Amino acid sequence: MDISTLQQRLRQFASDRDWQPYQTPKNLAMAMTVEAAELLEIFQWLTPEQSLSLSDDQRCHLGEELSDVLLYLVQIADHGGVDLEAALERKLAMNAIKHPPKKS
Amino acid sequence: MDISTLQQRLRQFASDRDWQPYQTPKNLAMAMTVEAAELLEIFQWLTPEQSLSLSDDQRCHLGEELSDVLLYLVQIADHGGVDLEAALERKLAMNAIKHPPKKS
Amino acid sequence: MDISTLQQRLRQFASDRDWQPYQTPKNLAMAMTVEAAELLEIFQWLTPEQSLSLSDDQRCHLGEELSDVLLYLVQIADHGGVDLEAALERKLAMNAIKHPPKKS
Amino acid sequence: MDISTLQQRLRQFASDRDWQPYQTPKNLAMAMTVEAAELLEIFQWLTPEQSLSLSDDQRCHLGEELSDVLLYLVQIADHGGVDLEAALERKLAMNAIKHPPKKS
Repeated sequence: MDISTLQQRLRQFASDRDWQPYQTPKNLAMAMTVEAAELLEIFQWLTPEQSLSLSDDQRCHLGEELSDVLLYLVQIADHGGVDLEAALERKLAMNAIKHPPKKS
Repeated sequence: MDISTLQQRLRQFASDRDWQPYQTPKNLAMAMTVEAAELLEIFQWLTPEQSLSLSDDQRCHLGEELSDVLLYLVQIADHGGVDLEAALERKLAMNAIKHPPKKS
Repeated sequence: MDISTLQQRLRQFASDRDWQPYQTPKNLAMAMTVEAAELLEIFQWLTPEQSLSLSDDQRCHLGEELSDVLLYLVQIADHGGVDLEAALERKLAMNAIKHPPKKS
Repeated sequence: MDISTLQQRLRQFASDRDWQPYQTPKNLAMAMTVEAAELLEIFQWLTPEQSLSLSDDQRCHLGEELSDVLLYLVQIADHGGVDLEAALERKLAMNAIKHPPKKS
């Protein structure tokens, strides 16, 4: 599914539930942060090593939280007027300049 | 760009910089939450209405923070063994059941 | 109750439950952020005005989340070797310099 | 310094800078979460062990971020109408019931 299709689908979903008044970038940013923290909670008492070998249940839970974050993320881009794919390419280019690779 | 291409590109990026030891889901989840909060910071003193009409500078900043969150998100999925597109479809189906549309 | 009494009480509480191995500043910082986001969740769909006139239930919920954040906060200070009262006084002095008052 | 003295001092500080319109619990909760994430950032690439032996610089930075979280926390309690000390005592009692000690 491409991003703009997903964004349109989420706009329709919100509209069918009369949620539009709540869909401001400010509120959506709060909701995305809440979901990011729910994802963080999965790992809070695990060692870094344990976080690399999740059980099936943990992996399923992780997939749900990742999806929740992603769904708010594309809605913030949509309602905030950001072209997400263009922003992503720009950021990847910036990161390559900011962090030059190690020479061996 | 599709998700698995992006994930492979980010693995190569990390490997070229000897960052692999840091790339645990636990650490990446922390980094994603930090970026989510940097995005939240854009909106903290704005009214909901102001958050709907961002300046070009604010929109550019928002695009950078959205990208930062997204880059960590796809890396968490990768290192955590989650099929992100499958998880997303499952979540959309669950949300449709959990929140039935309003009848008019 | 003063801060060091509270910190000692929380150390004892953790010790009585064999939680010491989990009480690293890294883990406690994750837990505090998770609790901060649970507090944030109370307000995510409220208008700023609504957030000023909470119901008794909301105020009770808010008190619980504030306490959760505070309990992790004093534990991070304790395990991270920070004198919280001294740090607070320093920060208040820094803020007064950074943000000079408006002249009328 | 006791909590209500600190709260009064922060109200005066905000008033001297015409910040009152921004001091809603919704906005303050966003600001507190942003500060919690800045604290989290200190630890994101550290091992749990490294987080237990901070350098003087790291400890100083940690003290600043802990203070920032605490300052917003007491303001949220103030503007949200929560008696923080009473809420804390209630929470400590609830935690003792929820998590009985290991020894029988």
